[in-house]
Amino acid sequence: MLDFTIEKTDPTGARAGVVTVGGRSFQTPVFMPVATQAAVKALTRDEVERLGARIVLGNAYHLYLRPGIELIRRVGGLAAFMNWPHATLTDSGGYQVFSLAPLIEVSEEGVTFRSHIDGSEHFLTPESAVEIQHAIGADIIMAFDQPVAYPTERAQAAEATARSDRWAERCIAAHRAAGSAQALFGIVQGGFDRELRAESAARLTDMPFDGYAVGGLSVGEPKPETFDLLAFTAPLLPEARPRYLMGVGTPTDIVRAVACGMDMFDCVLPTRLGRNGTAYTRKGKINLKNAQYQDDLRPLDPECDCEVCATHTRAYLRHLYKAGEILAARSLTYHNTHLYLRLMREIREAIMAGRYGEFLERYLEQNDDR
Amino acid sequence: MLDFTIEKTDPTGARAGVVTVGGRSFQTPVFMPVATQAAVKALTRDEVERLGARIVLGNAYHLYLRPGIELIRRVGGLAAFMNWPHATLTDSGGYQVFSLAPLIEVSEEGVTFRSHIDGSEHFLTPESAVEIQHAIGADIIMAFDQPVAYPTERAQAAEATARSDRWAERCIAAHRAAGSAQALFGIVQGGFDRELRAESAARLTDMPFDGYAVGGLSVGEPKPETFDLLAFTAPLLPEARPRYLMGVGTPTDIVRAVACGMDMFDCVLPTRLGRNGTAYTRKGKINLKNAQYQDDLRPLDPECDCEVCATHTRAYLRHLYKAGEILAARSLTYHNTHLYLRLMREIREAIMAGRYGEFLERYLEQNDDR
Repeated sequence: MLDFTIEKTDPTGARAGVVTVGGRSFQTPVFMPVATQAAVKALTRDEVERLGARIVLGNAYHLYLRPGIELIRRVGGLAAFMNWPHATLTDSGGYQVFSLAPLIEVSEEGVTFRSHIDGSEHFLTPESAVEIQHAIGADIIMAFDQPVAYPTERAQAAEATARSDRWAERCIAAHRAAGSAQALFGIVQGGFDRELRAESAARLTDMPFDGYAVGGLSVGEPKPETFDLLAFTAPLLPEARPRYLMGVGTPTDIVRAVACGMDMFDCVLPTRLGRNGTAYTRKGKINLKNAQYQDDLRPLDPECDCEVCATHTRAYLRHLYKAGEILAARSLTYHNTHLYLRLMREIREAIMAGRYGEFLERYLEQNDDR
Repeated sequence: MLDFTIEKTDPTGARAGVVTVGGRSFQTPVFMPVATQAAVKALTRDEVERLGARIVLGNAYHLYLRPGIELIRRVGGLAAFMNWPHATLTDSGGYQVFSLAPLIEVSEEGVTFRSHIDGSEHFLTPESAVEIQHAIGADIIMAFDQPVAYPTERAQAAEATARSDRWAERCIAAHRAAGSAQALFGIVQGGFDRELRAESAARLTDMPFDGYAVGGLSVGEPKPETFDLLAFTAPLLPEARPRYLMGVGTPTDIVRAVACGMDMFDCVLPTRLGRNGTAYTRKGKINLKNAQYQDDLRPLDPECDCEVCATHTRAYLRHLYKAGEILAARSLTYHNTHLYLRLMREIREAIMAGRYGEFLERYLEQNDDR
């Protein structure tokens, strides 16, 4: 289903590898631009490819509700629907069902919720979440889980985590029964309790997943807790399988998480901040809403080699943002995604050169993107 | 200031030429994509150039209010601000002041109005409208006029038209006094009365404008009236100068207006309709809001050679539109602008081949884009 070759492990524990799945390959550490509704927001598939992305992430919850899985199945899956020539991954929708949809009932069997679009009632189980992801046909699909919010009482966190682990078992059974060639990843939960994380990791790694994700981080907790838990959890995952840190994070977060041995990342920040007028630079974030950029004739990031920075000034882009022009969202999203994907290439080079510790130290000194 | 070379006049009266102004050239008949706020909505300047545009149109009213003329003057004008390597034209803002801004008072001296953005009070005269356009620095600028709405009582239309013609005289004086090298066009008004149109054309063509526009058409009147007035007015304009039909129209309108001897066109339709989910095709318009496109796996226009039609299906683009994805606006705007600019190339080829009558007849038979 999925081949993962580790080319190099740096003394820090950072890994550089290649994932091959569904006849497509991508290098790790990898950042997956988020294409929730089958499009990376504000970008074309040509741009996403030109920026260097080789896998994008769709969301089963959103695609199931709209346009519906029958259309996607009929055209041959998510990649064909988007006409995206590289790998795809879908999140199961667990996170969205519990965070976005008005929830009706959670039982051992599954979750009843209302669509955030039209209020219609739906019932999702581990089995149906896997079935939906089969129809959507991404190369990598995710187990259906119940995330743990921050903060949550220990008893509730324990209950949700144990249920997620039982649901993981059911996802594997449904996946096998269907004979799918897609890769299936399990998701370690456990909230912010080391014991629960260890239990979840132990149960999940006993199951034959193609890869393992760490879920439920970067959900509002203080940053030290994120990395405390991640540094604790990552080593509990099998070395030979890809490790995916879900929904994290800023460029600095990714640089740090790579040092914990994580291989795969996704985050809405580069696209969402771009639409909101914020650009990442090598020297931190700049928010074009601020009046200081009104007459600023420098590019977004003087050290950036992207097309936007080669073409437009901060003053022009601020004007576009203030004027509500789509080109502002396009330009900032393009620039931010470029920064993320260039960072991933630099991270990989540093690992391959065996100098990731030095890279990490210098990066943390020079950047503060909080 | 402006050189206009007519390369060919077709038996229909359609003309193919070249305008050279401000060191930049463009072929006519020309369609000018609308960049109201210094950006063609949803497109990059690279895309607009790649689609074949060689002149875009900005709006002095909008740019004066935001970002303000000082910034644009400082960076070297509109083209530099946008980093657009070809020609630019600004509309004077007359139309916007009278259609968009809450109006306070119109006098012989000028117009007092409120900004539609922040309610601030402004006073615009023919002289200040020209001065603003000098600061914005487009290659071609327009006289400041008072448009005539449809319908308007004859007495009022006569008064507004006579005033516009007096304002035109003042625009020329201000333009000469400033020693500007920009080209200045006059605008024939007169509402929907032939006598008023003839008077306005007679007065305007007595003034040494670099080109002549027909204004106040396509403002809500029935289509036959538009072309009745245009066919009457166009021959009153000097043959040796470019003739610009302001704000018109659909592809069919442009094909017909070219046969009246008009050379320059602008219209928000390709961009505005694109953002609203409507695509022009060789067989008329399609509106992706309609459920019939839900499972339609054909491109927007099977006869189109644009990148969007080479990449995406109607079903995918409809999904993007329904999901509120920026990529829908981008894709449809790109496709529609491509269709307009390809049409202009075909129009020009037909004129150069001396077979525009045949082209016109076939086009009207095959298209209905109302």
